[in-house]
Amino acid sequence: MTVQKPTAKRRAAAAVPPANPILVEATREPAVESRHAGAVAVVDAAGRTVAAWGDVERPIFPRSAIKPLQALLLVECGAADAFKLGARELALACASHGGEPAHVATVTAWLASVGLTESDLECGAHPPSAEAAALALLRAGTAPNQCHNNCSGKHAAMLSAARYLRLPTRGYVRPDHRIQQEIGRVLDDLTGLTLGKLPCGVDGCGIPAHAMPLRNIAHAMARFAAPDELPPARAGAAKRLAQAMAAHPFLVAGTGRFCTALIQRKQGEVLIKTGAEGVFTAALPKLGLGVALKIDDGARRASQVAIASVLRHLGVLDDGDIEALGGFARPRVTNWRGAEVGVVRPAAGWPA
Amino acid sequence: MTVQKPTAKRRAAAAVPPANPILVEATREPAVESRHAGAVAVVDAAGRTVAAWGDVERPIFPRSAIKPLQALLLVECGAADAFKLGARELALACASHGGEPAHVATVTAWLASVGLTESDLECGAHPPSAEAAALALLRAGTAPNQCHNNCSGKHAAMLSAARYLRLPTRGYVRPDHRIQQEIGRVLDDLTGLTLGKLPCGVDGCGIPAHAMPLRNIAHAMARFAAPDELPPARAGAAKRLAQAMAAHPFLVAGTGRFCTALIQRKQGEVLIKTGAEGVFTAALPKLGLGVALKIDDGARRASQVAIASVLRHLGVLDDGDIEALGGFARPRVTNWRGAEVGVVRPAAGWPA
Repeated sequence: MTVQKPTAKRRAAAAVPPANPILVEATREPAVESRHAGAVAVVDAAGRTVAAWGDVERPIFPRSAIKPLQALLLVECGAADAFKLGARELALACASHGGEPAHVATVTAWLASVGLTESDLECGAHPPSAEAAALALLRAGTAPNQCHNNCSGKHAAMLSAARYLRLPTRGYVRPDHRIQQEIGRVLDDLTGLTLGKLPCGVDGCGIPAHAMPLRNIAHAMARFAAPDELPPARAGAAKRLAQAMAAHPFLVAGTGRFCTALIQRKQGEVLIKTGAEGVFTAALPKLGLGVALKIDDGARRASQVAIASVLRHLGVLDDGDIEALGGFARPRVTNWRGAEVGVVRPAAGWPA
Repeated sequence: MTVQKPTAKRRAAAAVPPANPILVEATREPAVESRHAGAVAVVDAAGRTVAAWGDVERPIFPRSAIKPLQALLLVECGAADAFKLGARELALACASHGGEPAHVATVTAWLASVGLTESDLECGAHPPSAEAAALALLRAGTAPNQCHNNCSGKHAAMLSAARYLRLPTRGYVRPDHRIQQEIGRVLDDLTGLTLGKLPCGVDGCGIPAHAMPLRNIAHAMARFAAPDELPPARAGAAKRLAQAMAAHPFLVAGTGRFCTALIQRKQGEVLIKTGAEGVFTAALPKLGLGVALKIDDGARRASQVAIASVLRHLGVLDDGDIEALGGFARPRVTNWRGAEVGVVRPAAGWPA
């Protein structure tokens, strides 16, 4: 055993790829206790990078943060019209919901309206992320079903498209199913990538999880936010989905959730969408910009602080918004007696 | 707004202090999804650094990972003998327990034996971290009390020392209470630091949280592991506490917890102790070494993988141990249907 000093060379050898900047820090006053590195891209609809921090060319898994893009197929293929889906269903198609009664009832009714049931979902079941909903199930002794899965709206959208296109519904989550291939083509178009050449994993809900650089994700979100240059069917689909998210922020996430609170507060001027492992996207229709960020370590607390800080930097949130959304944007660190002992905040000097 | 490229200069400016190496990565096959940086120190009882990764001179908050050191006072001041405390109580003095019935009952009885009750604790209440215990309280409609707090054994130890030393018990968590000052002196001695010159925050359970470099924490843990050079009362106290942790690993943590599983498996040859925000310490009596690690971002999943990997590197765990402790040492990433879609593992090439 030898002494191994933390030289720059050793760090460089171990820290492949190169380190992203620290975006967020958690304090235990009077010191910083923990630090979160990450990267952020802000891109316009023409693909110009307006701002960037960290390595925005490294592929990351956007996870649920691109659900609004994955939902485009439902509308542009004609299924949403054919099945007379309303803004509530479209909001749920873009959602990572809390499994609360309104979410579950709407998805259940939606599936019935296309002749399917909860058992046709292939997302798996998990307890509601909303605490009250999870406790209610526990108290009732009821197991969660697949409609409680936070992704059940996205899956209902995929099943609806499959029904409308007269495709088999079984196996709709598999990479070789035509629904996933069609969604992949939409993502290729909007990101400018050939996703088939990039790594593809399996998402928590079983569908393909394509890796893509933050710059391309932000570009796609900008096109979603400002879709006028897109083909008319896609532009119309993007507008309908954005309007649905703006009209039903509760259905996009739920009780105690940042996506819901921010979309509500900004009345649809800012659409944000979270993804597992520290991802956020934002669509900014008025500025014609898209934002994508990933916290390297996957921490949600840091991703929330970081997206709020970037939106403040871009001028779409002001200090009043940050204060009102403080539980997400500047969460207090408390001890078990409720005293404030620190805060999670943007790292000194970031963003600037 | 200007384009801000992720240049080396920008990264360096934002990433103050300099980046630690990536120790742990979470994959979503076939790619790495998230990365955890951190630092580790391995030191012997004479203070020689045997191995180190990252910046081990930067002060961090060790949190609950130094409970075995904080518990020394209870024994060396004579309180443990005077109150006839056994190995179960001493193990709980070093514990971050799950709030399970055995933990709560033992602490409650211990407090009674020194003429105190749950209401004398100043740690605050929180639901048991052990899921079954938390559910049992919910089902019974019973609120958690301060004995359910994971730190209640440490607090019972502090209260016992205060009783024995005829000090007021009220306010025993405050930095200016003599109990905290005595514990600070023990920590000064073992770490070789003057903690009064370093940042001091408030821990989750209300006591002072001293910041200290990983190298010094590891040195103190090495002295705890191999105490023969310490003054006899302290050496005896360290041995009794280590024996108590080895004899009662369940009381040190609980059901489904890494500390318990590892101490059980190695029959006390390896003592590990977790702390909030990604900290672990280890005491290795046979090798006479102490280990201290901190994951920069505070993630528990990474701290567990990292401490297991360091112990494998040091030869105190073998491949069979890593496999048997796989739920902590190499946790699978699964989707909601239970399929394995990735793994949390040491970063490529680390430790080496």
